[in-house]
Amino acid sequence: MKQIKVQLENFDYSIYVGSGLITDSKFFRDAIKPKLIGSKVCVLTNETVRDLYGELVLSLFADFDVFFFEMQDGEEFKSLASYQSIIDFLIEKRFDRDLNLVALGGGVVGDLCGFVSATYLRGVNFIQIPTTLLAQVDSSVGGKTGVNHAAGKNLIGAFYQPSLVVIDPDVLNSLPRREYLAGLAEVVKYGLIYDEDFFSWIESNSSDLVSGEISKISEAIARSCEVKSKVVSIDERESGLRAILNFGHTFGHAIETVSGYGTWLHGEAVSIGMAMACSLSCQLGMLNRETEERIIESLKNLGLPIKATNLASDHIGQLMSTIRLDKKVKDGLLRFILISEIGRVSIESEVSEKSLEALFVQSLEN
Amino acid sequence: MKQIKVQLENFDYSIYVGSGLITDSKFFRDAIKPKLIGSKVCVLTNETVRDLYGELVLSLFADFDVFFFEMQDGEEFKSLASYQSIIDFLIEKRFDRDLNLVALGGGVVGDLCGFVSATYLRGVNFIQIPTTLLAQVDSSVGGKTGVNHAAGKNLIGAFYQPSLVVIDPDVLNSLPRREYLAGLAEVVKYGLIYDEDFFSWIESNSSDLVSGEISKISEAIARSCEVKSKVVSIDERESGLRAILNFGHTFGHAIETVSGYGTWLHGEAVSIGMAMACSLSCQLGMLNRETEERIIESLKNLGLPIKATNLASDHIGQLMSTIRLDKKVKDGLLRFILISEIGRVSIESEVSEKSLEALFVQSLEN
Repeated sequence: MKQIKVQLENFDYSIYVGSGLITDSKFFRDAIKPKLIGSKVCVLTNETVRDLYGELVLSLFADFDVFFFEMQDGEEFKSLASYQSIIDFLIEKRFDRDLNLVALGGGVVGDLCGFVSATYLRGVNFIQIPTTLLAQVDSSVGGKTGVNHAAGKNLIGAFYQPSLVVIDPDVLNSLPRREYLAGLAEVVKYGLIYDEDFFSWIESNSSDLVSGEISKISEAIARSCEVKSKVVSIDERESGLRAILNFGHTFGHAIETVSGYGTWLHGEAVSIGMAMACSLSCQLGMLNRETEERIIESLKNLGLPIKATNLASDHIGQLMSTIRLDKKVKDGLLRFILISEIGRVSIESEVSEKSLEALFVQSLEN
Repeated sequence: MKQIKVQLENFDYSIYVGSGLITDSKFFRDAIKPKLIGSKVCVLTNETVRDLYGELVLSLFADFDVFFFEMQDGEEFKSLASYQSIIDFLIEKRFDRDLNLVALGGGVVGDLCGFVSATYLRGVNFIQIPTTLLAQVDSSVGGKTGVNHAAGKNLIGAFYQPSLVVIDPDVLNSLPRREYLAGLAEVVKYGLIYDEDFFSWIESNSSDLVSGEISKISEAIARSCEVKSKVVSIDERESGLRAILNFGHTFGHAIETVSGYGTWLHGEAVSIGMAMACSLSCQLGMLNRETEERIIESLKNLGLPIKATNLASDHIGQLMSTIRLDKKVKDGLLRFILISEIGRVSIESEVSEKSLEALFVQSLEN
């Protein structure tokens, strides 16, 4: 079991990572407030996850008064409408500020539950039990909570930290293989943006990571959380450094949008996006071709895509306009996170629309 | 002009109080982020207030790109539905995180604008220009933001601090007299809960306060904000001390609810509630009759009601059940903020339902 302490300006909490933790009530008991028999716990989850782990979670919180709220599964339910139905449920049950909200599920459940926790009676205790690899290494850490709006993802939300995150890699057994592999893209990202040693470790252990060997995936999750929590500790509210966590994401979002949601999983799109960010970094003379190839190789070895094979050169216009919408274009220049060596990225605002177009031509030519 | 510095755990800001401040662009310019010509400012207000001060505010923010959003006036519009229409407007205008939101109005505008500021793109810069006495001495200070739910007031919200509060007592000229006087109830409250000197000052200046003499009302607002910000600095998220700000409010809310909203203004109900809290404090032997009479006298001198004259003894059942819903009743005991001397209140959890009923019998007998 590994403990990662997240130290923020005015709030500290721990992330625990370890096989079997979801069956160990100790950490959960310690995090429930007030520490009284009969304290109220409301678990937000979806049907699939509840079928798998609902009973287990009930026994974890045996001394408490446990309620479940099942939401529908899918990004389209991370909405203000779902938010409102959860709030209605909490009010109907007359829960007061001593309520403990537990997110049991992936990123959709975690982000929504976090936003409810941030705003129900101006804030209640919040615990995360992420059950997808993506949520374990990314969305459950860092305090970004929120919902989507018809016009875009995560436009409504708050920064609100959980009091506890418990990550049990055993639950990944129940995850579809493609979704599991997609989660590894974010793991690679942490190596690329911050930690060359970690990247080398991923390279050496890629076949174990692909097969889901539990000690290796535990290690990968813990080190990912370490990098993310370090970055977040320095810049909780994304005024600077935190932007590096979006490495590969501008391209990834554009590919997701132009392909239509569902074509690529988020992690897959990020993998393709990171490959494009590397390629752009080379094109601008920041990164050497050798390192680029090494990065591409590592993504391939994890079974991750590196090209948007569904898109062709006639999609370039759409990709460009999606990115223009996403970013503030000033004098035809755009802001991108580029990489100069493994473990070192920087935010560059000198990327011209022309370079970007050249990159798309090159990436989509065959 | 008086400056009150609010020092919170991880955020400081200033409240400025002074006649004519709403025509002085200096403070506003300093608070707009980023400090660039063309930065976006969106003013949330209602029709009445915009007619009075819209042009003025436009000239205040002359160097910036100013938008207005008019919401409907009234507590019933402090709702998730209004929240959503403001969010839709901001998204439609494609405002990014550099947006500055300005609340120009009373408590409804301020609370709603604060909640939007807290949650639009996970938080944007927020400025308060309160235009009612109640908002100037109470809701604009302290960072409580939120909306009502059909089941109750302020059930959804966040703690989110403004970067600047500008209070100009001149704007109170446009306030209906009854609303102005009702605001004085909260002013008296600050003396009662925290500051005997201030209470004595209010007593000596009550006729000037009633007539709205500008230097006296400025002083009263500044001292009220000082007390509130001191209490909030010690306990931003209401885990202890901050509860004293609710002195008189449990009774006040019950009276508002049972009378039907609109019968009493909030401040009037608080005045009656404070008189009842004093009476209960006497009944329990905490406060002497002489001090109680002094307090009642001061409320009367400010033209404030001290009895819920619309209610009679057959409303006692309803009042009791409203309070029971509002509070956690444990073994028939309730938690109240009681007063032992002027400037000193405490939270007592030993109030029996029986004492409470006796109090109602006594207050409503004639």
